[in-house]
Amino acid sequence: MLLDSGCTAIAYETITDSLGNLPLLAPMSAIAGRMAIHVAAYSLHKNSGGSGILFGGVPGTQPAKVLIVGGGVVGTNAAQMGIGLGSDVTVIDKNMSRLRYLDEIFGSRLKTCYATLDSIEEFAVEADVVVGAVLIPGSTSPKLINRTTISKMKPGSVIVDVAIDQGGCFETSKATTHDSPTYLYENIVHYCVANMPGAVAKTSAFALNNVTLQFVLNLADKGLKEASYDNSHLRQGLNIHAGKLTSLAVAKAQNKQFIPVLDAI
Amino acid sequence: MLLDSGCTAIAYETITDSLGNLPLLAPMSAIAGRMAIHVAAYSLHKNSGGSGILFGGVPGTQPAKVLIVGGGVVGTNAAQMGIGLGSDVTVIDKNMSRLRYLDEIFGSRLKTCYATLDSIEEFAVEADVVVGAVLIPGSTSPKLINRTTISKMKPGSVIVDVAIDQGGCFETSKATTHDSPTYLYENIVHYCVANMPGAVAKTSAFALNNVTLQFVLNLADKGLKEASYDNSHLRQGLNIHAGKLTSLAVAKAQNKQFIPVLDAI
Amino acid sequence: MLLDSGCTAIAYETITDSLGNLPLLAPMSAIAGRMAIHVAAYSLHKNSGGSGILFGGVPGTQPAKVLIVGGGVVGTNAAQMGIGLGSDVTVIDKNMSRLRYLDEIFGSRLKTCYATLDSIEEFAVEADVVVGAVLIPGSTSPKLINRTTISKMKPGSVIVDVAIDQGGCFETSKATTHDSPTYLYENIVHYCVANMPGAVAKTSAFALNNVTLQFVLNLADKGLKEASYDNSHLRQGLNIHAGKLTSLAVAKAQNKQFIPVLDAI
Amino acid sequence: MLLDSGCTAIAYETITDSLGNLPLLAPMSAIAGRMAIHVAAYSLHKNSGGSGILFGGVPGTQPAKVLIVGGGVVGTNAAQMGIGLGSDVTVIDKNMSRLRYLDEIFGSRLKTCYATLDSIEEFAVEADVVVGAVLIPGSTSPKLINRTTISKMKPGSVIVDVAIDQGGCFETSKATTHDSPTYLYENIVHYCVANMPGAVAKTSAFALNNVTLQFVLNLADKGLKEASYDNSHLRQGLNIHAGKLTSLAVAKAQNKQFIPVLDAI
Amino acid sequence: MLLDSGCTAIAYETITDSLGNLPLLAPMSAIAGRMAIHVAAYSLHKNSGGSGILFGGVPGTQPAKVLIVGGGVVGTNAAQMGIGLGSDVTVIDKNMSRLRYLDEIFGSRLKTCYATLDSIEEFAVEADVVVGAVLIPGSTSPKLINRTTISKMKPGSVIVDVAIDQGGCFETSKATTHDSPTYLYENIVHYCVANMPGAVAKTSAFALNNVTLQFVLNLADKGLKEASYDNSHLRQGLNIHAGKLTSLAVAKAQNKQFIPVLDAI
Amino acid sequence: MLLDSGCTAIAYETITDSLGNLPLLAPMSAIAGRMAIHVAAYSLHKNSGGSGILFGGVPGTQPAKVLIVGGGVVGTNAAQMGIGLGSDVTVIDKNMSRLRYLDEIFGSRLKTCYATLDSIEEFAVEADVVVGAVLIPGSTSPKLINRTTISKMKPGSVIVDVAIDQGGCFETSKATTHDSPTYLYENIVHYCVANMPGAVAKTSAFALNNVTLQFVLNLADKGLKEASYDNSHLRQGLNIHAGKLTSLAVAKAQNKQFIPVLDAI
Repeated sequence: MLLDSGCTAIAYETITDSLGNLPLLAPMSAIAGRMAIHVAAYSLHKNSGGSGILFGGVPGTQPAKVLIVGGGVVGTNAAQMGIGLGSDVTVIDKNMSRLRYLDEIFGSRLKTCYATLDSIEEFAVEADVVVGAVLIPGSTSPKLINRTTISKMKPGSVIVDVAIDQGGCFETSKATTHDSPTYLYENIVHYCVANMPGAVAKTSAFALNNVTLQFVLNLADKGLKEASYDNSHLRQGLNIHAGKLTSLAVAKAQNKQFIPVLDAI
Repeated sequence: MLLDSGCTAIAYETITDSLGNLPLLAPMSAIAGRMAIHVAAYSLHKNSGGSGILFGGVPGTQPAKVLIVGGGVVGTNAAQMGIGLGSDVTVIDKNMSRLRYLDEIFGSRLKTCYATLDSIEEFAVEADVVVGAVLIPGSTSPKLINRTTISKMKPGSVIVDVAIDQGGCFETSKATTHDSPTYLYENIVHYCVANMPGAVAKTSAFALNNVTLQFVLNLADKGLKEASYDNSHLRQGLNIHAGKLTSLAVAKAQNKQFIPVLDAI
Repeated sequence: MLLDSGCTAIAYETITDSLGNLPLLAPMSAIAGRMAIHVAAYSLHKNSGGSGILFGGVPGTQPAKVLIVGGGVVGTNAAQMGIGLGSDVTVIDKNMSRLRYLDEIFGSRLKTCYATLDSIEEFAVEADVVVGAVLIPGSTSPKLINRTTISKMKPGSVIVDVAIDQGGCFETSKATTHDSPTYLYENIVHYCVANMPGAVAKTSAFALNNVTLQFVLNLADKGLKEASYDNSHLRQGLNIHAGKLTSLAVAKAQNKQFIPVLDAI
Repeated sequence: MLLDSGCTAIAYETITDSLGNLPLLAPMSAIAGRMAIHVAAYSLHKNSGGSGILFGGVPGTQPAKVLIVGGGVVGTNAAQMGIGLGSDVTVIDKNMSRLRYLDEIFGSRLKTCYATLDSIEEFAVEADVVVGAVLIPGSTSPKLINRTTISKMKPGSVIVDVAIDQGGCFETSKATTHDSPTYLYENIVHYCVANMPGAVAKTSAFALNNVTLQFVLNLADKGLKEASYDNSHLRQGLNIHAGKLTSLAVAKAQNKQFIPVLDAI
Repeated sequence: MLLDSGCTAIAYETITDSLGNLPLLAPMSAIAGRMAIHVAAYSLHKNSGGSGILFGGVPGTQPAKVLIVGGGVVGTNAAQMGIGLGSDVTVIDKNMSRLRYLDEIFGSRLKTCYATLDSIEEFAVEADVVVGAVLIPGSTSPKLINRTTISKMKPGSVIVDVAIDQGGCFETSKATTHDSPTYLYENIVHYCVANMPGAVAKTSAFALNNVTLQFVLNLADKGLKEASYDNSHLRQGLNIHAGKLTSLAVAKAQNKQFIPVLDAI
Repeated sequence: MLLDSGCTAIAYETITDSLGNLPLLAPMSAIAGRMAIHVAAYSLHKNSGGSGILFGGVPGTQPAKVLIVGGGVVGTNAAQMGIGLGSDVTVIDKNMSRLRYLDEIFGSRLKTCYATLDSIEEFAVEADVVVGAVLIPGSTSPKLINRTTISKMKPGSVIVDVAIDQGGCFETSKATTHDSPTYLYENIVHYCVANMPGAVAKTSAFALNNVTLQFVLNLADKGLKEASYDNSHLRQGLNIHAGKLTSLAVAKAQNKQFIPVLDAI
């Protein structure tokens, strides 16, 4: 077990920034959001079990209807790509300020919708592609789209569950791999690959280095102790040190003793 | 009667250009196409009998679905304005080259559809606004949308019949005036104002002067005879001269004697 | 009187959000801002008494010059639509950060101007359309454009006073209705309809539901007392309860006794 | 053999339009051009053998460099999608008018380059993706990119050979299938699927119907003989009738007797 | 003299293409049109004698008003750059089809105006920058803007005369050089550099090579005689051969004997 | 010396706003950022010693590669103009949130890169133009690009050092003037004009008035004492009063006695 090893463990996903966000997660969310559209376009092909619709259509035919559930980093990046490929994109979210912002930057190229269980279902059953982009940091994703809704969708439609690493936000999702990325359930193509960014390892490595570099330099320059004292954001990431559990959340979840970072180092 | 008056009559609508188009009609078509969207937005208001949908919606709500039947000058101008107001616009036409061009200049902001009687009906019954923009120069407009389709449209939807001056392209259209521009039929708001550009007289006058000026200068500089010899496009517009009928089309239609322009002047 | 009725009164317009904004007013402002452009385009028509300019012009003619006084939610939405229709839009405001943001998202399609009494007058007398979009929450609108400036405007120009519900920001504004929306004063078309969003009741209802739903669910789930304790934003909206006046502002304005919400419930 | 069967054979690919183009090929070219970008994005993934670059990158990382060889229908559609996904697209062509048009409609989002053997090689070896989009109707594609150039490209780069149905425009291309779409050669991922539009059968069917419908109606209304007399474009498509070879090109290529359509029917 | 030298002289500016255009002039026009905006922005600086306006302004201030006289290749390229820098651009032209096309591709970012002597003057006196972009191939430019209009322009405004190589289209223009590019006349900064593209020699060389290469290869492959027989466009460029004058236009202008190319070679 | 004069000195550059920014510096940064692109385009000309590349290229040739070091106000404005002129722009910065925002508003028209010493060098040596846009308020600019990197750049490339007023961010920069704006060093054109906005004095004056006016009115209305009490932002700007040094930073730097504003007035 990690505690017994005596190691110092810093978790990317709990490092914060001055706005309270999780800056080391953002690039992976951006990558997954953009990839979601690539793989959706590909999964609509007949040989993936899809309906055989071309994502953006061609003049004289209809483009795919795309529903993006969640307008955060994942959803915004998915929307940008979906619009770019010429599809008919709707972003659905409960955060009205966010929808207003998306409307300001994308204008008439994007539709937005306020999220209720009813509106999610209504749009999902009309959609050719649904991207599940609701991630709640540090907790299991809510099941926003249930089996019944899935069963009402048009055969050959595609769902991409970007939240699969946290349990998924479709009731019918099960994690898949890059080698066998999709399965059919109720005639709906499910793309539920865990660790989506792994497929674009080169971009992912650069994107992650960009955000971690300052912390690495901080540690290298000052050593763990001083760096932890000086940088509260880094400190939020320090979960284990010298056999002590310094993450309150983990301590509570595992019913173990919690020792604050500044006492532990 | 005009013939007896001995006047020289030049008809704007039969003057041609080097591409075989009718350049003196184009500006009025552009104006009518753009106005069609203004008046559609206004006619959707409750107090016009409309469904009370805001044309472009606001973040979190759905914009109006707009079907533009015909992708020529009228339709292109209507599309440009409809997109500008943030609505969900589809242009339907049989001319695939035209649809491809519209796709190239408007990209993902516009949908296009190939026109068949079926596809027109299918889109019309889903639309909040239908703009009839099919004008066949010198002939009566085809009735592209019939009473049955109108009766299947959503109550409070709006039709704008830009072709009303040539008989209209909706079966249920009857010409109206700027003072009383709309009527309800089958709960559909009908905007069928004859001479739409009259409402924006200032812009119309400038737009028309822009295209007629060269012909006026030609006549003023050279006199009718020489101008007619030199300028075959102007000659196409000369319908009556000194009691002689110089338009073949009119002569046939009225079963009168036709005398070529160059013999008449 | 409301106090005597013993009712519990929650005012939409005093509910806050975490940024100190008034989230239940924003959707109505967005609607009014967008409608302002529709009605301005319509009011420029000759039969409304307007100058007969087509809002966005057509190739070869000049578009309308539009001045939007105020770059908040109303003004931003009006700008988005005004640009979309191809007019020549200037937003005038004293908030430079806001002007910079508008410049970033609209780029070369929008002009911005710093607001002084002089600059407002200078632009107003050149404009074909002036939209008054300055609303100060909970107080009377300042009269930014006075009678003298109005009298210098071009005949047939249009003003749209979106602030009319709070007294209006033109000195010459008087509230009108959707049935008789405009009047001429000094040859300027005044559109001063109170409750503009009423004309698009369907969109307004959805937009309002989107922002109120969470508060309604909160009340339904927890009851008034617990919801008020837990949700400080909702608490800001609770103005009257069980015969007690719980709004400090109202109490002051009416010189009545003020009782804090948490004491009253 | 077809001739012996006595059938009447109309070839889609030789029907013309009034501009001398081949209108029944255009929709398939548009589809293949758009798909080329989808499959390129997918083929860059590690598990396809690609370099692991995300097609459009994310903020802070570099997008893929995309070279599109040919700026016709295929290339324009590929460019539109490549730009939409945020990649760094260059279209290379010898037709300067075409490059100018692409510059006018795509502006600063697209780079264009004049095609010479040198410039093609220079850009290809720098590219992450090369789309071969040069189709010469009725003849074998020229091999624009040879084995040597391919061997200089960066490992893990992707080529998509849209011209594979006519022999391909990369020297190293061999036709593949939708079930096994790519192979590695010199560490370059080759996507060379014959009949690309087959994967999006639904969109392809609609797109093809849109352009063929008028000819079908023509034949149904008038019968073969009259339709062939009246419609010279349809006549160009009529290759075999009643055991006679009515296509001059095929007759020459196969050294058989040619009989003009109007003599044969 | 050239004739006596016995040389074969091919003139770039008389080579045609299949549309009757002069393809070897187009790239230089594109370069000059784009440069016109760079140098105008620079010439507005105080130390060039300009009015000290920033070309595109900054938020809260007004951008330069730019009038582009002529909407051909020069004018379109100038418009594209002027819009890109955020200025308020109007293109003025007599060709309505061209104005319509510019409106379609630039939308609400560009204003267009029909050219008359009156409208040119009206816009010029309001402008901060006027670009003269009217070139009539093979003839002297018309003086579209006369001394009187220049004298009414605002002090410190800038004119850029792209037509100076053909005599200029401002009455007050005199050719200048890249080393001393501007002079003040009536307080207006005149930029009238002959051979503008010379300043960007690298881009000019590539652009010119792109369009001449095919003719050079043609000559190299086939020799002059066969190339002239086969390629009518090249033939239009052949003005002198073996002491014979093969250009009809030059022969007429100089009152010399004309010998057709095909007789001379 | 200022202190002895007994004057009251208010420094524009230390007045703050509610976000902690320096609002009186922002307009000059915006101006300098936009001008940086104008002067870069001009400095690329042969007669300035530049490489002779046209900033945005023309169809068929390559545009300039532009590296903007710093994505703040200066860099964002430079990027907007650089994109507008059709060049290939990369913004490099360490602030990932800022890069994400730039990506959202500019989309596929802009590239962004995370700043490290390595990445800055790598992009600089490939660039045709490098804009140094890193200003650290109240301190000397860091030398982000050193002599070695400059010596590796392509001959005729251009650097614009917007930070020259604070010492410059290129190691080889020396301040120049508007009359002699550039010098060659290692064959690189250096544009290092101090007080760039001086060249566009008219726009600069308006832009500065826009942001200072409220403080001037404040002082005029209330007098220094009351204005200083009421307005903490103004107070931050008050550096000297009645012989007392009221700026802590200046007092420290000059080792003099510091007296708080509220004690001094």
